Amino acid sequence: MSRFVNQRVGALTPYVPGEQPQDRSYIKLNTNESPFPPSEAVAAAVAGEVDRLQLYSDPDCRALHRAAADYYGLEPEQILMTNGSDEILNFAFMAFGGPDRPFAFPTVTYGFYPVFAALNGVPCRQIPLTADLRVDPADYRGLGCNVVLANPNAPTGLAVTVDDVAAIAAANPNHVVVVDEAYIDFGGQTCLPLLAQYDNLLITRTFSKSFSLAGARLGFGMGHPDLIRDLNTVKFSTNPYNVNRMTMAAGQAALATADYYMDHCRQVAATRETTKAALREMGFTVTDSLANFLFAAHPAVGGAALYEQLKQRGILVRHFAQPAIENYNRITVGTNAQMQALLAALADILQGV
Amino acid sequence: MSRFVNQRVGALTPYVPGEQPQDRSYIKLNTNESPFPPSEAVAAAVAGEVDRLQLYSDPDCRALHRAAADYYGLEPEQILMTNGSDEILNFAFMAFGGPDRPFAFPTVTYGFYPVFAALNGVPCRQIPLTADLRVDPADYRGLGCNVVLANPNAPTGLAVTVDDVAAIAAANPNHVVVVDEAYIDFGGQTCLPLLAQYDNLLITRTFSKSFSLAGARLGFGMGHPDLIRDLNTVKFSTNPYNVNRMTMAAGQAALATADYYMDHCRQVAATRETTKAALREMGFTVTDSLANFLFAAHPAVGGAALYEQLKQRGILVRHFAQPAIENYNRITVGTNAQMQALLAALADILQGV
Repeated sequence: MSRFVNQRVGALTPYVPGEQPQDRSYIKLNTNESPFPPSEAVAAAVAGEVDRLQLYSDPDCRALHRAAADYYGLEPEQILMTNGSDEILNFAFMAFGGPDRPFAFPTVTYGFYPVFAALNGVPCRQIPLTADLRVDPADYRGLGCNVVLANPNAPTGLAVTVDDVAAIAAANPNHVVVVDEAYIDFGGQTCLPLLAQYDNLLITRTFSKSFSLAGARLGFGMGHPDLIRDLNTVKFSTNPYNVNRMTMAAGQAALATADYYMDHCRQVAATRETTKAALREMGFTVTDSLANFLFAAHPAVGGAALYEQLKQRGILVRHFAQPAIENYNRITVGTNAQMQALLAALADILQGV
Repeated sequence: MSRFVNQRVGALTPYVPGEQPQDRSYIKLNTNESPFPPSEAVAAAVAGEVDRLQLYSDPDCRALHRAAADYYGLEPEQILMTNGSDEILNFAFMAFGGPDRPFAFPTVTYGFYPVFAALNGVPCRQIPLTADLRVDPADYRGLGCNVVLANPNAPTGLAVTVDDVAAIAAANPNHVVVVDEAYIDFGGQTCLPLLAQYDNLLITRTFSKSFSLAGARLGFGMGHPDLIRDLNTVKFSTNPYNVNRMTMAAGQAALATADYYMDHCRQVAATRETTKAALREMGFTVTDSLANFLFAAHPAVGGAALYEQLKQRGILVRHFAQPAIENYNRITVGTNAQMQALLAALADILQGV
């Protein structure tokens, strides 16, 4: 820390992204990336932008907003594209949070929410999960503050229903309810139909998981035009050209070839189910994840130990050293071959305990 | 504005980027883009990333930090790459500003500084230019607060010397002095040699202008490792994967082919000088810009009127409706052919007054 830093930033504990080791090649099941490359249309779209890179990207992101509006059945004024979904989430904390405007979220969820809160001086109301790691929607009714829920939740993969979210939005009419649908394409129910009814609902999405574009950085928010206008105020006060030309083109191409991606999402969901069954067969407790990852614990090996032993065997998963979930690991669902390698490594590890 | 927005964001006046009209094709001299496309190495580098876009970019940006460190004669720990230089500038306001930590800057400068200040609740000390539109370095000594100076300044193009900046850094030892060198490659003196001596100096740069990558969004900061660490704390608390894979690769390729770009910078500087002489010949007052733009006023036509008449003739320049400079327009230096078209249009306009 330098002697110039202010108190708030000096006190921050930043988010720690999943490790990206350079020392050897791993089967990487730790950051919920897609095992499938982007569609060929993406390569062509990107190539078409390269000789125009000397020109700024469209700060209003018109073509991509139009494409996303068409795909999701909305108006462009209901959409804001950002540099990954972390940016739209941070914008939401910036615009709607404040010292007297807390955000409520589960104690176990995407670890970035408390960081966004601390960065923006927003108090957190962290609400415990149920004993079986579920979000109890009743806990979020009539809170009188903003809410952010990952749905499906991370790292459990467990989802609430659209009716649950509708009840939460209805019970907090004077506060914003953010539904982070980063993993929705792998099996959950989207809250998109609720946008017509609730002007306090903001749905965030990412192209990182279901659209195989983690490395291109593209996320977005969908909500009432007034909410989107506020988030645009933040965007134009931080980084008007937040999405680059290549990523904009990639996003449009991805939406134009959505069938390719949704087919892969179904493959991942199928692999998730067979892997879940195999893990349970081996004695693991596994949540009923609707995301592109599994969340699993074994009575015979601690979570941190299992993480380490998998790493020694060339397989990276994600362990969170947080009391409620320290026995678990989050395992990205990859290809069937990757899952076979995982199961073989786990069998090997369990044989040794 | 929605009813959910907080007071600070509700009160923001966002930055207004240069217009990007879609209605017709203009000679675009309004956003200081390079008239030259990126080098061929950039296309190859980008193409090499497309089939890996399903994987996150390196949040530590190691390869690009190493490449920039080598190019600028620094250590990687002295560099932080961001999503355009607006992001590193905003990070500096976030990390080093605060309600009791003002930033000083000229009344006439990059219009984003007061927006970053307002967004982050940082008071501004705006210091007037001299009558001939120069920054007087004496005004910035012993201010007892943070300073940000664009050098060369925008939209005047006028620069201070390295010795001037050294004196400012030395006279404000307990505060950060940010030198925004967005336009330095077109003729100013870089303050890079001062980094070895002043731990309170942060130099920001962009690939948007001299490296023909405005549409790829890449900027960076250079400073003492402690300063960079603070800025990294902000980055990892907002958007750890802030630079995408394609842009990282483009940046490395651009640095590897820097001669191509520096040759173009010299061409632009030469075109700037011939255009400046021609404008003065036509009766314009023109600053001695060291940037890739000219700043010019004519006694016979108001700045806003001239902007409008150029737009009608298919040429876009940038007019700032700010009292001290309202007679001026900022004109990006393009190719010689574009400048000939500009001069012809101006001759035509002046003939009519």
